[in-house]
Amino acid sequence: MPVSDFPEDCQPSLTINLDHIIDNYKSCIDHTDGTACAAMVKADAYGMGLEQVATALYDQGGCRIFFVANLIEAIKLRTCLKDATLFVLNGFFAGQADFFLHHGLRPVLNDLNQIRLWAEISSADKPACAIHFDTGINRLGLSPEETTKFIEDSSLRNSLDIALIMSHLACSDEPVHAMNRIQLERFQAIAGHFPNIPASLANSGGILLGPDYHFDLTRPGLMLFGGNPQQGPLPEKIKTPFTISGKILQIRDLKKGMTVGYGATWQAPQDGRIALVNVGYADGYLQMFNNCGMAYIKHRKAPVIGRVSMDMIALDISDQPPSLAVGADVELLGAHITLEMASKVSNLSQYEILTGVKERYRRVYIKKQG
Amino acid sequence: MPVSDFPEDCQPSLTINLDHIIDNYKSCIDHTDGTACAAMVKADAYGMGLEQVATALYDQGGCRIFFVANLIEAIKLRTCLKDATLFVLNGFFAGQADFFLHHGLRPVLNDLNQIRLWAEISSADKPACAIHFDTGINRLGLSPEETTKFIEDSSLRNSLDIALIMSHLACSDEPVHAMNRIQLERFQAIAGHFPNIPASLANSGGILLGPDYHFDLTRPGLMLFGGNPQQGPLPEKIKTPFTISGKILQIRDLKKGMTVGYGATWQAPQDGRIALVNVGYADGYLQMFNNCGMAYIKHRKAPVIGRVSMDMIALDISDQPPSLAVGADVELLGAHITLEMASKVSNLSQYEILTGVKERYRRVYIKKQG
Repeated sequence: MPVSDFPEDCQPSLTINLDHIIDNYKSCIDHTDGTACAAMVKADAYGMGLEQVATALYDQGGCRIFFVANLIEAIKLRTCLKDATLFVLNGFFAGQADFFLHHGLRPVLNDLNQIRLWAEISSADKPACAIHFDTGINRLGLSPEETTKFIEDSSLRNSLDIALIMSHLACSDEPVHAMNRIQLERFQAIAGHFPNIPASLANSGGILLGPDYHFDLTRPGLMLFGGNPQQGPLPEKIKTPFTISGKILQIRDLKKGMTVGYGATWQAPQDGRIALVNVGYADGYLQMFNNCGMAYIKHRKAPVIGRVSMDMIALDISDQPPSLAVGADVELLGAHITLEMASKVSNLSQYEILTGVKERYRRVYIKKQG
Repeated sequence: MPVSDFPEDCQPSLTINLDHIIDNYKSCIDHTDGTACAAMVKADAYGMGLEQVATALYDQGGCRIFFVANLIEAIKLRTCLKDATLFVLNGFFAGQADFFLHHGLRPVLNDLNQIRLWAEISSADKPACAIHFDTGINRLGLSPEETTKFIEDSSLRNSLDIALIMSHLACSDEPVHAMNRIQLERFQAIAGHFPNIPASLANSGGILLGPDYHFDLTRPGLMLFGGNPQQGPLPEKIKTPFTISGKILQIRDLKKGMTVGYGATWQAPQDGRIALVNVGYADGYLQMFNNCGMAYIKHRKAPVIGRVSMDMIALDISDQPPSLAVGADVELLGAHITLEMASKVSNLSQYEILTGVKERYRRVYIKKQG
């Protein structure tokens, strides 16, 4: 059934301004004095829509290099971007060769087994790959022992077309964390063995750590989508590119002492008014916002009261103008209730709030012509 | 691109046993001595797949009444179930009449405005509706004042075909909470004014509160999907109908003192081994599981160590057999790591864990022929 057969006004909405994402991408490049910049678009472009975001970044942003988590995401992205360079972070496994070769995808090889496997299947035409060195996060990437072996094995190295060497920072959200400098120095030492190959270390947080961390290519994700990877102020030019809005389903008068919601966890301190809004934890608005979330309605904030339900929240609208009516839009996340603010009250990370956005929202994309 | 063009083994999987959901539905009926039972399938059937779950419950379970949250969900459900009775919990709003009438949907009318609006548009053939009375949750439903007005307005009542009266419990997860009995008595008093109309009060928790709460129709959701709505033991017959499995991407040796993951929050107490698994918070496995989540691999548990990443977790597999290899399946939620267990360690509600399951999983449905 085509979407036009559905009414538009009974769902909460997620409005995504693609121009803002493009501007954020350009701001990342400006911030690194023109260092080349790839876009991290895994997890459905952090929940904002892989196809729309990647196409906009390619067409209007000039982005030519994209990273995704797994092969499925890469194949989907290849159907939109025929010519872009696509890296698959999860690596390369037995049985996947045809998919990588057919779609012209580049694996990020994370250990010697993957490297040898790739060297075997690709010996004929040496398709490009990236090598991921673990410099301290102990997640994926070649261990120090494997790194040494790989650097010493010139025959293995020569059997590959290495398009990129990379590593990933564990603590870039904390600029003063000692691990940043340790990882930087380890990666600099490794990069010294690959003088003619582009190197990449910086995610969004790494971009803000300064020029030492930028190397030849940065890979922002969160900052493209308006998130702040560190605790300091967000770079001024970074814009929030999305708005999550719910609609008021009902407005109720409350008498002092009445409770609201599951578990009766909120009690009215005085007579007042509440609004029931059609967003709940099944939309990704989790119970971490119980009694602490904040909405924005017509220039004023309205607190979430009681427990978040599966499909609904209650807001205290006692301070709102009496004209506020059923059907009105309520911002739950966006320019006024930023990711940082929502993260602070909920203790969810900005990343989790972003990628937690569920499919139940009606998605609306905004983009200038061109 | 059809799904068969994707490799199967690079995604985590969500396996859903529809037979178990059908069995759970029948167990709800048994538990209420045969009281009629509707299925709550809002939020994509709690993340398990609206079409597959509802069709199985209709065809094999004999379920004929379904509740969804909003009009979009109802229209989607109508395309699968031509003859079932479908109730829309969010109510009825101006501009939606054609959708309700065309698809034969029944609104759950939540206030006098909605009731009057429905009476107007439907005056000709009086299509069926439900009336929702708020007996204490202060969420949706007619307030006590509106309830009194509605009961006294026989002309308004007679202009409607009321197929169901209902209310919703605020504290059914706590059997001893005084609110349960208060809401029961309020609803009994209301039902006394509608002697010939079926009445419904019990969600999953209400089913366990005993026969007084069952009335003519129960509306379980969580319990159909293996969740426990109360803190006591789950009724024996209720089965976990799903398994979330990740795959091991890499196995690493760790030396005592090495840290793992973002923020370096976990430090190896001794030499050991870890496995990186392809499930992260973008799949709904949130950072509430940092350093406390639990996986199940080949008859043993393996703890989550460090922070959950967007696309990945690390497990301590020092106690696992040395034969454990890359590509092995790891249960993160299912028969061995139940919703209750996961909820306990994470402080997420069972409902949130269920509905938080994201679309990135490869979905596999199991059903007997028939």
